[in-house]
Amino acid sequence: MKGNGTIKMVCYSDMNVEQLEKEREGLLKAFEECKAMGLKLDMSRGKPGSEQLDLSNPMLDIDLGGSGFKCSQGVDIRNYGILDGLKEAKELISAMIDMDPENIMIFGNSSLNIMFDTVARSFTHGVMGSRPWCKLDNVKFLCPTPGYDRHFAITEHFGVEMIEIPMTPDGPDMNMVENYVNNDESVKGIWCIPKYSNPQGITYSDETVRRFAALKPAAKDFRIFWDNAYVIHHLFNGKEEELLNIYDECVKNGTEDMVYIFCSTSKVSFPGGGIAAMAASKANLEYVKKNVTFQTIGYDKINMMRHVLFFKDKNGLMEHMKKHAEIIRPKFDAVMEVLDRELVPLGILKYTKPNGGYFISVDVPEGCAKKVVAMCKEAGVVMTGAGATHPYKNDAKDTNIRIAPTYPSLEELKKACEIFVLCVKLASVEKYLQ
Amino acid sequence: MKGNGTIKMVCYSDMNVEQLEKEREGLLKAFEECKAMGLKLDMSRGKPGSEQLDLSNPMLDIDLGGSGFKCSQGVDIRNYGILDGLKEAKELISAMIDMDPENIMIFGNSSLNIMFDTVARSFTHGVMGSRPWCKLDNVKFLCPTPGYDRHFAITEHFGVEMIEIPMTPDGPDMNMVENYVNNDESVKGIWCIPKYSNPQGITYSDETVRRFAALKPAAKDFRIFWDNAYVIHHLFNGKEEELLNIYDECVKNGTEDMVYIFCSTSKVSFPGGGIAAMAASKANLEYVKKNVTFQTIGYDKINMMRHVLFFKDKNGLMEHMKKHAEIIRPKFDAVMEVLDRELVPLGILKYTKPNGGYFISVDVPEGCAKKVVAMCKEAGVVMTGAGATHPYKNDAKDTNIRIAPTYPSLEELKKACEIFVLCVKLASVEKYLQ
Repeated sequence: MKGNGTIKMVCYSDMNVEQLEKEREGLLKAFEECKAMGLKLDMSRGKPGSEQLDLSNPMLDIDLGGSGFKCSQGVDIRNYGILDGLKEAKELISAMIDMDPENIMIFGNSSLNIMFDTVARSFTHGVMGSRPWCKLDNVKFLCPTPGYDRHFAITEHFGVEMIEIPMTPDGPDMNMVENYVNNDESVKGIWCIPKYSNPQGITYSDETVRRFAALKPAAKDFRIFWDNAYVIHHLFNGKEEELLNIYDECVKNGTEDMVYIFCSTSKVSFPGGGIAAMAASKANLEYVKKNVTFQTIGYDKINMMRHVLFFKDKNGLMEHMKKHAEIIRPKFDAVMEVLDRELVPLGILKYTKPNGGYFISVDVPEGCAKKVVAMCKEAGVVMTGAGATHPYKNDAKDTNIRIAPTYPSLEELKKACEIFVLCVKLASVEKYLQ
Repeated sequence: MKGNGTIKMVCYSDMNVEQLEKEREGLLKAFEECKAMGLKLDMSRGKPGSEQLDLSNPMLDIDLGGSGFKCSQGVDIRNYGILDGLKEAKELISAMIDMDPENIMIFGNSSLNIMFDTVARSFTHGVMGSRPWCKLDNVKFLCPTPGYDRHFAITEHFGVEMIEIPMTPDGPDMNMVENYVNNDESVKGIWCIPKYSNPQGITYSDETVRRFAALKPAAKDFRIFWDNAYVIHHLFNGKEEELLNIYDECVKNGTEDMVYIFCSTSKVSFPGGGIAAMAASKANLEYVKKNVTFQTIGYDKINMMRHVLFFKDKNGLMEHMKKHAEIIRPKFDAVMEVLDRELVPLGILKYTKPNGGYFISVDVPEGCAKKVVAMCKEAGVVMTGAGATHPYKNDAKDTNIRIAPTYPSLEELKKACEIFVLCVKLASVEKYLQ
């Protein structure tokens, strides 16, 4: 990459027009050179790389017939039966999310699907006896922002009014959350990724979790959708973060019916070939089971058993996650090194360093995110669409971009970062020249 | 078993009170003896036996890494991607149901779940642009009866008004079907199991299929739910039945958007560990995909590939089904032999001999079904609940009972049949004595 280093880390905001124009000239030249290279790189997708997938290959050859295909409940895992999942699979998920196995139900391969079905069920049948949401004039969800586009897509699909709640370093702005939840009966839910959040990698503080558990919702059918997607997905960089157990806090407040907890092994074993689970109060689970009885005879117990035999216990899970981290930590480090070296000192990029999860969320100067993503695309680098992290894909300040470092190889990633850096500089310099 | 053979096959209806009372005496004695044996037998569940499951065990050890886990579309089957299923899985299902792979979408492990979701989606989002059913005052489904309890349970769960359509040896009474569908705009669907139907084992005649395809629904969003659950599930007794391809017939009539076809490998490979599919017109599939995008990132492609590599093609599937038939045909034969010997000649049981599927449906004298099932239970034999084959579990004549011969061993089955025979006789004799 050329065109860098001519300016000795002077903030763009401190440059005069002449300096900015000179900077732009060099950047444009570099940009044209990049385009000419015809690259095809991708930093858009929160997908494990193939090296990570290889870690779980032995699971595919595991001997399932050892105990005559019988689970601890005496049922043949190859046949119908056991709607709520194998006891031993509940124990495995229990080790992962620190919930009593009796408060866990195992589903199919996708926690997103469980969340979708949970929203759909609330629309068609209500929540534990409440009026079905499809019969209501107005259903609102709180959306901590930036957040996960597929969460927002579900509620948008059902015509839910989505309300942005700004994220802070401690989690969602709890003053706003309390104000909405405790006063507005049409607020029926909130999307949360409480640990290593998508995209910022923020873990909610103990205080935030306690304030969630202490909510006094105006709506009896208000639920916290606690998507603990990255519960054991540390980068193992010596800064492993702890999340307070919301269910325990809820029990203390007598609000345990207020929270649904979701998780999966999609980024532990195989995306699409993992197992997913929901944890909740007995009352919630009973209601869910009563409804799911109509939906299916049961989920894939064979795949549940594969996971049980492969991971065995908490220790097995954590050792496995360390291997994932060995592969992806250098990728995260590479991205952050470039951002810290090339963009942060220029005052044109802010971000929080994540200690786990799958993403790095950055804020470029206001009004520049779409332009940066478009320029990256022109130069052969696919980024997550600007705005994707916001409800209705509407980032009013046009500032947030999500970087997904796991899927490309380290070499590809470094190349893609160079181009990203160039595009952020170019978009920024043009902004300052306006 | 005692108490039989004293009456030389005189119809109960031709007996006088004295004969009936003598018969009852013998039967009651035998019944008490049975109860004393403390048996625990089960003819209630349409589940494969473990010998059948063993047939597919090699699938669990199949080498999936041969082509670097890449499918024909170049995607890693272990990772996210390909919402509508592997191309090669579509080809396998195509071989099973004789539909163009491009008209097929592969889902998770349960066709029932696809059907549930299809109904749920119609309620929340409508059908290809129609008004969501949850906004309508009245939604009706036609229910060919006797039928599959889990079908009826779905529509009951959604508050659909279910209308019984009597089954004939050619399928549902098409005069009634045409009358309802072509004139009543609130009729939105019909549940069909067109081949080796559950429970009667009836395959719809060509004429019936053609009349289905020629329907002119009053409701634009009317759909035929064509659950081809037993499409290749012949007993291979030399009487394999052919079902006319409804989609081809619909194309001739320009009604191809009117039918959803469902199938799965639940009773080919593993219940719960199989793959399920939906086949439909491109317009229907596009609409489904557009909606499913919100529900999941994708289904289990690893399990799809297992099925592809194990069954390979139509020939592989059919050879496999022949092995199933070798195991279950003797069970069907044993049941029918007993019915034909002990009950049919007495004029107290009618049934049609199935040539495939999973059930034998019998009609006992009116008002006796519940009593028979209760007596069986008392004597240690679990039968499917009387009425289960009817919408709202309401068999007005109290006459139909579903027998599921596949799960017990042949020996257990024979024992269970003896007890069933005894209970039918006892209930019948008491009816005639009233």
